[in-house]
Amino acid sequence: MTIFTKIIKGEIPSYKIAENDRFYAFLDIFPLVKGHTLVIPKIETDKFFDVPDEWLQEWLVFARPIAQAIERVIPCNRIGVSVVGLEVPHAHMHLIPINSADDMNFSRRKLELTPEQFKEIQAQIIAAL
Amino acid sequence: MTIFTKIIKGEIPSYKIAENDRFYAFLDIFPLVKGHTLVIPKIETDKFFDVPDEWLQEWLVFARPIAQAIERVIPCNRIGVSVVGLEVPHAHMHLIPINSADDMNFSRRKLELTPEQFKEIQAQIIAAL
Repeated sequence: MTIFTKIIKGEIPSYKIAENDRFYAFLDIFPLVKGHTLVIPKIETDKFFDVPDEWLQEWLVFARPIAQAIERVIPCNRIGVSVVGLEVPHAHMHLIPINSADDMNFSRRKLELTPEQFKEIQAQIIAAL
Repeated sequence: MTIFTKIIKGEIPSYKIAENDRFYAFLDIFPLVKGHTLVIPKIETDKFFDVPDEWLQEWLVFARPIAQAIERVIPCNRIGVSVVGLEVPHAHMHLIPINSADDMNFSRRKLELTPEQFKEIQAQIIAAL
């Protein structure tokens, strides 16, 4: 079972933003910037483009209101989207509030936020949904 | 009219990979790596998440066979996906064959390829579609 499936099942805690039958969204605990959110499917597929059509069709439509909520509460130019997938073998999409392309540079040092900061960001995004 | 609409209309030449009624895919002429491809909708919307549902639903399904063709011909671990959008006000998705997250670092210097190299990559990807 992947670490993401454990998060979906609640076996590992997460700062959840939203979920439906097919997807689960939560704050990345190694964020590039504040508001950095992961959207994952409730199926374990390693490679993004191996995910079945029904999920690919719904993924961006599920992500849209979350991206727009993040954009409302985190000062940014827009929401960037990134699928890398070299670390966890469970396809996932990053939603990242960006002001420059470097905000999506995964070689950058990650932010270290306190649980209180994560909870505050989580509450703000949920309130804006 | 955006530079991408001019490319779609053929007013600016491009190394086209595929198109349908809603989307157009072509080689990025400022590639991070060989095979770096752009997928754009045939409507001018600045922000990715402002693109209407019908396009968001089809975008990844249109991109999938292209991504898989790139993966067959360019040695890589997998295809990364990136939406940044800070330069051209016409939503676009990058498909990038990656071996490390740094292959998706837009701060990196772009490759300089000759027209012959672009044409060869284009032909290889189209043949693998």
